[in-house]
Amino acid sequence: MLYGVGVGPGDPELLTLKAQRLISQVPVVFVPISRQGERSVAMDIAQHCLDPNKQEIVFLLFPMSRRPAVLQEAWSEAAAKIAGRLKAGQDGAFLTEGDPGLYSTFAYVLERLRSCLPELRVEIVPGVSSINAAAARSLTPLATGDESIAVVTGAHMDKLKAALRNHNTVVILKVKPAYDRILDMLEQEGLAGQAVLVERATSEGERVVEDIKSLRGQEMDYFSLLIVRKR
Amino acid sequence: MLYGVGVGPGDPELLTLKAQRLISQVPVVFVPISRQGERSVAMDIAQHCLDPNKQEIVFLLFPMSRRPAVLQEAWSEAAAKIAGRLKAGQDGAFLTEGDPGLYSTFAYVLERLRSCLPELRVEIVPGVSSINAAAARSLTPLATGDESIAVVTGAHMDKLKAALRNHNTVVILKVKPAYDRILDMLEQEGLAGQAVLVERATSEGERVVEDIKSLRGQEMDYFSLLIVRKR
Repeated sequence: MLYGVGVGPGDPELLTLKAQRLISQVPVVFVPISRQGERSVAMDIAQHCLDPNKQEIVFLLFPMSRRPAVLQEAWSEAAAKIAGRLKAGQDGAFLTEGDPGLYSTFAYVLERLRSCLPELRVEIVPGVSSINAAAARSLTPLATGDESIAVVTGAHMDKLKAALRNHNTVVILKVKPAYDRILDMLEQEGLAGQAVLVERATSEGERVVEDIKSLRGQEMDYFSLLIVRKR
Repeated sequence: MLYGVGVGPGDPELLTLKAQRLISQVPVVFVPISRQGERSVAMDIAQHCLDPNKQEIVFLLFPMSRRPAVLQEAWSEAAAKIAGRLKAGQDGAFLTEGDPGLYSTFAYVLERLRSCLPELRVEIVPGVSSINAAAARSLTPLATGDESIAVVTGAHMDKLKAALRNHNTVVILKVKPAYDRILDMLEQEGLAGQAVLVERATSEGERVVEDIKSLRGQEMDYFSLLIVRKR
């Protein structure tokens, strides 16, 4: 059995009871890293559940790249490593930050695993996502009643513009590389005063910034998101 | 201190460690119900954390109504009850199903509390939402890469249509009262074969239905949602 386990947004106390139980029980834990020898955020969050004397930790390398060939090779290699352990009869847990359904590498690996191991048994254990965590830390409701929400990334400005016009709340992920352009768009749409930036929600170094204009041209963490809540 | 605590989608093991700790520690637990004497879903989920001999359980009545006057009175009454306990120096936890930021009554109550108790200290503890749980149970990724997601309810067909055209994944909540109309729309858009219905994700009686056309005219649970994942 393979478990895809969300470990939550950062605070180790935001693991679910189920994630804690499974991560501490399985003989093999699969940990995604983006560089050889680097620390894993997901593993740091789940550290208190792991026992390196009793469990095997298998690191899976997913380089930060946009080149399809590089990514596909990484996903296939990871799937092969996982398949090897599962075929040997060992249960494993694949750790993902936040929730496994939201922007996680686990989706790609699972797709490959299911095609090469048709008899694969898999269970996904949902986790608290960084979106819900950021809403909580900034005391911003994401939606009430019959309102709607869009979740977009900072990569497509046209999509962002349409989302800002069509939805009550827009959550913008991966804002760091495009922050100033996103800010321009929010100012154009008259929404810069109705947004909040949350950096590293529930982790060390967390910041909640309501004056988002003050961040123009500034450095920010990769794990930053904006919540635009239209009044 | 008031804690707004998400208890997750239904499986008691999907509570976070933090929710479990806070719910079992606070002297007062606020529990939303929709009818006097009715069971509370959120309280059932958190039952294993509660000790009625040591904790006071305060039920807050939120009638299932669309009449603004009825709702506003309920929110104000709830806020007054909570304010009374907090002023007496007692910490309390307000339980919400799923995550407090998503379609929860807590948002309305908090708004009222903050205006009548400016010195209010409040912390929201995010939870696993039913959206993440449904994605997990149906093994459907919500988004990868730079994809976008819309979350809408079954109340606005125009909004649904636009969302289906503009986003990679559309999550439709509160589908029960409008199921057949939603199905018509998905068929018109050629998307009925790319959707999955999840009922009572992670709770007793859970159902994951891929053949969503088979549900036309059928009864379904209030806690049902559709995930449309465009290929």
